[in-house]
Amino acid sequence: MSQVVRLSDVAKAAGVSQGTASNVFNRPDIVRKEVRERVEAAARALGYSGPDPRGRLLRAGKVNAIGVATAEPLSYFFDDPYARVLMTGISRACDLQGAGISLVSAANEEKLAWNIQSAIVDGFVLLCIEGGTRLVELTRERKLPFVALGLEHDDETISMIGIDDHAGAHTVAAYVADLGHRHFAILSLQLVDGHVGRVDDAAIAAAIYKSSRERIEGYRAALAERGIDPSTVPVFETENDRTSVMAALTELFDSAGPPTALLAMSDRIALFALDWLAERGIAVPAEVSVVGFDGVPESAYSEPPLTTVSQPIEEIGRMAVELIFDDAKETRRLSVPVDLTIRQSAAPPPADRA
Amino acid sequence: MSQVVRLSDVAKAAGVSQGTASNVFNRPDIVRKEVRERVEAAARALGYSGPDPRGRLLRAGKVNAIGVATAEPLSYFFDDPYARVLMTGISRACDLQGAGISLVSAANEEKLAWNIQSAIVDGFVLLCIEGGTRLVELTRERKLPFVALGLEHDDETISMIGIDDHAGAHTVAAYVADLGHRHFAILSLQLVDGHVGRVDDAAIAAAIYKSSRERIEGYRAALAERGIDPSTVPVFETENDRTSVMAALTELFDSAGPPTALLAMSDRIALFALDWLAERGIAVPAEVSVVGFDGVPESAYSEPPLTTVSQPIEEIGRMAVELIFDDAKETRRLSVPVDLTIRQSAAPPPADRA
Repeated sequence: MSQVVRLSDVAKAAGVSQGTASNVFNRPDIVRKEVRERVEAAARALGYSGPDPRGRLLRAGKVNAIGVATAEPLSYFFDDPYARVLMTGISRACDLQGAGISLVSAANEEKLAWNIQSAIVDGFVLLCIEGGTRLVELTRERKLPFVALGLEHDDETISMIGIDDHAGAHTVAAYVADLGHRHFAILSLQLVDGHVGRVDDAAIAAAIYKSSRERIEGYRAALAERGIDPSTVPVFETENDRTSVMAALTELFDSAGPPTALLAMSDRIALFALDWLAERGIAVPAEVSVVGFDGVPESAYSEPPLTTVSQPIEEIGRMAVELIFDDAKETRRLSVPVDLTIRQSAAPPPADRA
Repeated sequence: MSQVVRLSDVAKAAGVSQGTASNVFNRPDIVRKEVRERVEAAARALGYSGPDPRGRLLRAGKVNAIGVATAEPLSYFFDDPYARVLMTGISRACDLQGAGISLVSAANEEKLAWNIQSAIVDGFVLLCIEGGTRLVELTRERKLPFVALGLEHDDETISMIGIDDHAGAHTVAAYVADLGHRHFAILSLQLVDGHVGRVDDAAIAAAIYKSSRERIEGYRAALAERGIDPSTVPVFETENDRTSVMAALTELFDSAGPPTALLAMSDRIALFALDWLAERGIAVPAEVSVVGFDGVPESAYSEPPLTTVSQPIEEIGRMAVELIFDDAKETRRLSVPVDLTIRQSAAPPPADRA
């Protein structure tokens, strides 16, 4: 294994040109049988196992693989509930085609460009949870089909699959308000990178993450229609992690007149909130109702099971792969429907807080 | 985007040779400034964005990516609990290096060879749950470092990371027997491909899957040491899926003298068994004890939480990546320790069955 046998060695041993030897491996039909057998015998004798597969890629059209890129570390694909379900959809669609998947992370800035540039794929699915802009810029340069999921910028030249964030948020807020709640708080995903804590209207209007803004607007519209002044509803920006969610809840529940209903912009935030409330001994849903967004599998197994806005996550993954292999030249913008999934984490408020 | 601009077009427009134009993009330091600026201006004017990244790969040494291949469909990486934890370890190790991951499935026989041959990676981790032999054969031809996990053949020329299956099985069977159980059944992983149902000693001795055989031998040794005749303990081969586990349990519990303790060779089998017993109204652990093998995260959340043999799954993934990037020339065979994790699914048997 230490000595690499090259095609030129085989050609020399068989007494043919390198071009003829190459044809034996790549276009055997055009080589006379006698010559072919001579070259094959020489290859066997030398232990030559065929041309470097990378060479074929220069000639091949399709490589039968898609790239999936994220601004998160690669471990995100396996330990984040949403990403895992999405990847299940992507991988099922690739399995149907017998295609491979290259996972690319943008978390390492230094190597990101190379990882995007060097991925041998027919197209990219970009998981633009955060940091999507840079991913899109780098991917554009590859001039391959790509589909952006969860992209927060409204660029009409990019193929995207998204959901109606406003409608989803409106539906779940309306449901909770109709249970009788008047005291809400919103636990938001990022509006701008790296900011956490309570935000005002100016910050919401300036949000660079469009779906976060639209979810807030959806929640607020439903509340306003039910006579609840949105300006009285605190909005806390989080990083979708335990620390920032805990900090928001501590501030909310240490205040006078804490909320009786928490509108969480992801199931992850809602599940952290359930943990925090359980630790504090606050009963859900008897004292506080909590609703999520996404419909990840874990939302069905929490204590109590989570009422949430369900996205067809696996279906989104499948559609993304189909868009890439469809090879459609025009930009496609698809929206998939969301549903209210009613479980046990929301109920009417305590009688003295209704 | 419809018209592809080539390096030769840029060279022609700038009035230089293609070799000089190539140097501007690949070795700019050796090109005179005046020429470089002329070529760059031509490239900008034509909208040429640099050489095809695939070309660079032919010259590059390391590509900063590893391939992970399995005989299962790609969705296995995301929906199987064991694979997911292993991939978390693999991806964390790759994140530290800023490396990418290519996922390759051998489920599509027709495209398997191509997918292995064309993966642009520095080495492979093979998840040889089943069908490992073919994966190993194809991967060997790539002449890249590779590490086989869970490989069931004892080939000393292959780098492997494994566990002591015999010791793990011995420990958990001893624990259950010491609780007072005398009536056991073993729910086995595959011994040979495609076989399910009750097996005899000859079938166990002929098992091609070494770790399945060693786990059975470990269970049996512990029972024999405690005065339980292993020949009285039924062994049911399953395909690690719901259907074959349910069929085995139906046969076991419809017989006279059903077991009071089930030794399941994977947590997946044990969790299916818990489902089946709950449906039948058989209390665990009051009437029947169930123990698993693997220590996947789900084993902590089952009802009741599962007593099991825990493997350091994430650590195995991390070690595999390190072996590949270490570029060690010699074959390495590493064994990682397993632990008994005691939870609530095993207890003394009912008084009348002890």
